[in-house]
Amino acid sequence: MQNFTYQNRTKIIFGKGAEREIGSEVRKYSDKILLLYGGGAVKEYGIYDKVLSSLRESRVEVAELGGVQPNPRLKLVKEGIELCKSENINFVLAVGGGSVIDTAKAISIGVPYEGNVWDFYSSDKLIEETLPIGTVLTIPAAGSESSPGSVITKEEGGYKRVAESERLRPEFSILNPEFTYTLPDYQTASGAADIMSHVMERYFTNEPRVGFTDRLSEATLKTVINNTPKAMEEPENYSVRSQLMWASTVAHNGLLGTGRIEDWASHDIEHELSGMYDITHGAGLAIIFPAWMNYVYQNNVERFAQFAARVWNLDPNYFSLEETAVEGIRKLEEFYRSIDLPTQLKDLEVEITDEDLEEMSEKCTESGPVGNFVELEKEDVLNIYKLAQ
Amino acid sequence: MQNFTYQNRTKIIFGKGAEREIGSEVRKYSDKILLLYGGGAVKEYGIYDKVLSSLRESRVEVAELGGVQPNPRLKLVKEGIELCKSENINFVLAVGGGSVIDTAKAISIGVPYEGNVWDFYSSDKLIEETLPIGTVLTIPAAGSESSPGSVITKEEGGYKRVAESERLRPEFSILNPEFTYTLPDYQTASGAADIMSHVMERYFTNEPRVGFTDRLSEATLKTVINNTPKAMEEPENYSVRSQLMWASTVAHNGLLGTGRIEDWASHDIEHELSGMYDITHGAGLAIIFPAWMNYVYQNNVERFAQFAARVWNLDPNYFSLEETAVEGIRKLEEFYRSIDLPTQLKDLEVEITDEDLEEMSEKCTESGPVGNFVELEKEDVLNIYKLAQ
Repeated sequence: MQNFTYQNRTKIIFGKGAEREIGSEVRKYSDKILLLYGGGAVKEYGIYDKVLSSLRESRVEVAELGGVQPNPRLKLVKEGIELCKSENINFVLAVGGGSVIDTAKAISIGVPYEGNVWDFYSSDKLIEETLPIGTVLTIPAAGSESSPGSVITKEEGGYKRVAESERLRPEFSILNPEFTYTLPDYQTASGAADIMSHVMERYFTNEPRVGFTDRLSEATLKTVINNTPKAMEEPENYSVRSQLMWASTVAHNGLLGTGRIEDWASHDIEHELSGMYDITHGAGLAIIFPAWMNYVYQNNVERFAQFAARVWNLDPNYFSLEETAVEGIRKLEEFYRSIDLPTQLKDLEVEITDEDLEEMSEKCTESGPVGNFVELEKEDVLNIYKLAQ
Repeated sequence: MQNFTYQNRTKIIFGKGAEREIGSEVRKYSDKILLLYGGGAVKEYGIYDKVLSSLRESRVEVAELGGVQPNPRLKLVKEGIELCKSENINFVLAVGGGSVIDTAKAISIGVPYEGNVWDFYSSDKLIEETLPIGTVLTIPAAGSESSPGSVITKEEGGYKRVAESERLRPEFSILNPEFTYTLPDYQTASGAADIMSHVMERYFTNEPRVGFTDRLSEATLKTVINNTPKAMEEPENYSVRSQLMWASTVAHNGLLGTGRIEDWASHDIEHELSGMYDITHGAGLAIIFPAWMNYVYQNNVERFAQFAARVWNLDPNYFSLEETAVEGIRKLEEFYRSIDLPTQLKDLEVEITDEDLEEMSEKCTESGPVGNFVELEKEDVLNIYKLAQ
């Protein structure tokens, strides 16, 4: 078990009516804020009105910026930074999923910074100052509501990159599972693949004797596997939506990585894909993760066998753990297909040539090999893309 | 699933050498502190020296107070308060287990308060101001290193009572599993029973559809069950001690109670026992919890059957879940006996008369019934003590 430091200061306010506390929470930090959101769904389903009503009740002045897209773009981040600077705003409230929250985080880095905010995404530059942010979560997926990360895409070149700092954990996050009732099935399913990937990026480690976090991780995976199909069958089942929403946060708040060396190659490999072709991140992960698994499982057959037995309830073949390991990977693929996610590149409605794969492999590894479970060079990444074809 | 608010600001610094960060962490709050500890073990095994060396390196001035006993007493709390007041100390560093940490918390409440600190333990009086505290944990058991609670015993009458506030979460806790290598087996085992009880007080709920936290709780219980006997066989096995130490913190940091109605009757019933007879809290719980289970399991046989199947790997009898439920309780008792814990009052080296049981039942319920899974009146508590005889 590795040494670690863990602290998660984000205040989670969870449940029906949690949005009524937005105003009083915001007022602890500011009386003038940027309200950030994405497309029309937030307005269409009444979430926007509820947020605004709580803010008005607490007499919070609001500047608005809508239109955050999936795989959120640097351009809108810069717009938000300018807006905050010109209006003297020092708090950002994100209403939406990971894209909106990650944009809020990027704005919160950019406002107190003189240079180009992309500096923090294109290098390891230390984030020393940020605005406080709060979130109202509408999609259980990215875990950004209490994570220290933010992922932004730079339009030129389709670079999708990560900034990370403890400062990026939101001050508070409002989680009302009812706000997820209207999610399209594809988003519920993609969210599930994203949550599961956050757990699996930590689960597949060579660090020995991390049994406690192994078990917490398996508990989280089983919760997502059991509840996702139910959420698609009964979109307004509160308890099902609750389990998924809370699991999405815990999956990525850092607890499941304590004491472990995490991997994150699959995320790096997928980011090239969604950065270039603007596909849903979770769907991209449903394609990349099984391919990654098939490529690397022989590195630690025992761990993959444990995954198969504990997460998928497979009866292990103790005389051939490899057989069990492979069966576990197949189970994951089957699960993704059962919730109508793509599991191969050819399932996507985009054309990806061999030259594209070459270019993505190049970009993915331009700062060095990716992953820790197995370190992957450019050729390995290319092989994984090809396995996923 | 119940609505909830969850925030845990305690910074956990975990691993070998973590104590080297004590000085720099303390300096964020103060340059003059009260160093609080218990008996001689902390000095004997070199922990005291390591703590002091880190404090000196950061030029922190130290006043000392040793001698905190198990089931910590109000008298020493008051001594600590006076010491802090007279020396103008505004930070308390607890080095020890739950008793030392709970004493530090009590001191931290008492210093800024004009009246008698017991007010906060004998009533629901709101804790509005506290000193910041830090901890160096040496016994995985109480979970006080990141919990919002403190338990203190008032000598007159043997009242053992709880104060609770988010303000009581420590600012940081240093968890070096090596510091637990020298724990006597009885303390390792009692600690395990305490950890498991913290999980089970939350697990046994009538709240339906809390599957995610059910699974996280089962993961934690299995970790303790697997690692405790190993820790007693190989006291210096780092990975085993690590799993236990991290599990003890997560068991009681609030995560496993999110969305649930918790019970806590067994703790209330046990507190009378350790308040009166000064027995080890965890050992008292090993006696009381199975008796409580036998008394209440029929209220929710399904939940006890799930506990039996998932935590103890029992093959359920689907035609008689009650049989499975009872078998699960038996497994818990067997486990406690296997690690040399008492499971009946008669195993203790104290004489407890029927009048004593009567008196404890009276005191336990003097503010009303205890527990939520089943609400227990005085007669019920008495019945549970009798089942435990």
